[in-house]
Amino acid sequence: MSRSKSKVTITEIARQAGVSVPTVSRVVNGRSDVSEGTRARIEDLLREHGYERRATAPGSRAALVDLVFNDLDSPWAVEIIRGVEEVAHAAGAGTVVSAIHGASGSARQWMKNLRARASDGVILVTSVLEPVLHDELRRLGVPLVVVDPAGSPALDAPTVGATNWAGGMAATEHLLSLGHRRIGFIAGPPRLLCSRARLDGYRAALESAGVPVDDTLIVPGDFYHASGFAGAGELLALAEPPTALFAASDQMALGAIEALRRRGLRVPEDLSVVGFDDLPEVSWSAPPLTTVRQPLSDMGKLAARTVLRLALGEEPASPRIELATELVVRASTAPRI
Amino acid sequence: MSRSKSKVTITEIARQAGVSVPTVSRVVNGRSDVSEGTRARIEDLLREHGYERRATAPGSRAALVDLVFNDLDSPWAVEIIRGVEEVAHAAGAGTVVSAIHGASGSARQWMKNLRARASDGVILVTSVLEPVLHDELRRLGVPLVVVDPAGSPALDAPTVGATNWAGGMAATEHLLSLGHRRIGFIAGPPRLLCSRARLDGYRAALESAGVPVDDTLIVPGDFYHASGFAGAGELLALAEPPTALFAASDQMALGAIEALRRRGLRVPEDLSVVGFDDLPEVSWSAPPLTTVRQPLSDMGKLAARTVLRLALGEEPASPRIELATELVVRASTAPRI
Repeated sequence: MSRSKSKVTITEIARQAGVSVPTVSRVVNGRSDVSEGTRARIEDLLREHGYERRATAPGSRAALVDLVFNDLDSPWAVEIIRGVEEVAHAAGAGTVVSAIHGASGSARQWMKNLRARASDGVILVTSVLEPVLHDELRRLGVPLVVVDPAGSPALDAPTVGATNWAGGMAATEHLLSLGHRRIGFIAGPPRLLCSRARLDGYRAALESAGVPVDDTLIVPGDFYHASGFAGAGELLALAEPPTALFAASDQMALGAIEALRRRGLRVPEDLSVVGFDDLPEVSWSAPPLTTVRQPLSDMGKLAARTVLRLALGEEPASPRIELATELVVRASTAPRI
Repeated sequence: MSRSKSKVTITEIARQAGVSVPTVSRVVNGRSDVSEGTRARIEDLLREHGYERRATAPGSRAALVDLVFNDLDSPWAVEIIRGVEEVAHAAGAGTVVSAIHGASGSARQWMKNLRARASDGVILVTSVLEPVLHDELRRLGVPLVVVDPAGSPALDAPTVGATNWAGGMAATEHLLSLGHRRIGFIAGPPRLLCSRARLDGYRAALESAGVPVDDTLIVPGDFYHASGFAGAGELLALAEPPTALFAASDQMALGAIEALRRRGLRVPEDLSVVGFDDLPEVSWSAPPLTTVRQPLSDMGKLAARTVLRLALGEEPASPRIELATELVVRASTAPRI
C-alpha cells in the first residue's frame, strides 16, 4: 500500500484529493473548519506521501509543553506536574495537563486538541499511546519524552525513571540493620518492571546478608491500599509470621498499617513497616512512614528539560536516565525486640 | 495621568512611540522579538489609550484554558485539576496548569507566557493577582473565574466555592448525635472566610442542641498537620478534656490522630475525630477518617464550564456559586462511652 516517501507539495495533495489548496492548508494547520470526510481523505494522502509538517512555523515556538497522564487520580501526579511546571514556566512555556484514561477515544480527542493549537513537546507519564498516535506526533514534528516511575518496556523515546532495584535493596537493608530476619514483602503488579526490580532488590539484600529467601513471605499486591491490607493479613496468618513488612508502594504500606491496627498490633512496637514512593501524605500517617523516596518532581523537571532541548533540535543526554531513590527513615520502623 | 479612553489605532500608537506599525503589531501579538525598552514604551501607550486587543482573532479559539494555583503542593490541587481537565478536554481545549507562588515576578512571568500564546480563559485557584495583572487580563479580553475553597473576599469575577458553614454544622451534629457533648474544635486561619464559616457552623450546631459553647474547647490552627498535632495536645491538657475533636482540615485531623497515638489513646475508642476536605488519602489513614467532603473536582468542572461560557460571550449563571459539602462517615468516630 505505501508508496515511496517523496517530498510532496500541498498543491499535489490538493489535486489528488480533488479539493482546493486552502482546504489542504487548513488540515495541515489543524483548523477545524473542514468536514470529517474531507479531512480523513487529506490526512490519508499526507500520511501516504510522508508529508512532513511542523505544528508551528520553523523557528517559532508554541510556548506550550504537553504533559499526558493516563489518569489524574494517581497520588503522585501532582508531584510530577510540579516539577514539569517549574522548568517549563521558567523557560516561558505553559504546561498543558491532560488525562487520556487509557482510552483510545480520549487519546484521539487529545490529539485533535493538540492539532488545533501547537506544542513544543509531549511528556507521557506511564501512558501508552497507540502506534498511530505516535506516528502522528512524529509527523507533526513534536518531540516526545516518557516519565516512567513504573519501568515500562522501552519506548522509542528518551525515558526518565528511578532506581527501583537500589530502592528495594535499601529498604530491606534498613530492616536487616534493625535486627529483623523474617521480613514480609508485599509486591506490586508483576507485569510492571518496577515491581520486579523492587522485589529483586529485596532478594538481593537478603542474600547479601546471608538470610535465606522464604517465598512464603512474598505476597502479591497491585500498589493500591486494599491489596496492602489483604497482603498484611496473609502474612500475619503464617505459622511463623514476619516481624517487619516491606510494601512496594506507600498506599500498600498504609493498607498494611490499617490491617495491623484492626488486629490491635502497634507500629513499630509490634511490627515495623516500610513503604515505597514517599508521597507527601505519608509523613502525616500515624505513625509517620519510613519509606523509599522516588524523586518524582525531579523526574518531572528532567523530563521537561529534555523535551525543551529536543524542541530546539538538540539530542538528549541519554536514551534512559534513572534518578536515585533514597531511604527516608521516619517512625514506622524500630529494632526487633 | 490617564487620558480619555478612546478607540485608538495601531498606526497612531506607532506614531506616538516613534516605531513602525509592524513593531507595535509584534507587541500586540505578544511576540518576543522586540527589545524590552521598546515593548515597555508601547505597552504604556496601549494601556494609556485603553487599547482593546484579543489574545486570538475574533471568532477563533485558543483551545486552551489556564488554571493558576499559588502552589502545587496543596494536596487538593490534583482534585481541581482533574475536574477542570475533564470539562476542558471534552470541549476540545487543553488545560494549562501554572503555579505563581504568590510571587510578583512569577505572576508576571506567567502573564508574559500567556501573552506569547493565547488563552480562552483563566481559572484562579485561591490565588491573588496584582491589580495590574487583572487589568491586563481584561485588556486582553481573557475571561476570569475564581475557584475558592477558602472563601476569600469577593473578587470582580464569578466565583465557585463550597458550603463551609453547613459543613461545619454537619460535622458537629454528627458528633452530637453520637452522644458527645464536650467537642474540641481546631480552627483554621482566622483571616480566611472559610475558617470563620466552619467555626460558626460548629457553634450553631452546639447552640441548636442546647449545648453551651465553651471557648476553652476552641484552639487555633493553620490547616497544616503540625497545628493539628499541637492543637490536640492543648485540648488533651485541659482539666476537663473533650471526648471528640473536630478539626477544620483533614491535615489537622491527621495531626490530631498522631498526637493521640503518641499518648497511647485510640481513635475512635478513646476519642472521636472528624476532619474537613475529604482528601483521597484520608480513606487510607488508620483509622479511615470521618470528614466533610468538599466537592473539589466538581468545583473544577463548574469553573471550567463557566469560563468556557464566558469565552463565548455568555453571562455566568451567578456571580458566586457554593457547591454542597457532605458528611462522609468512616471509622474515626464512635458513640461516647
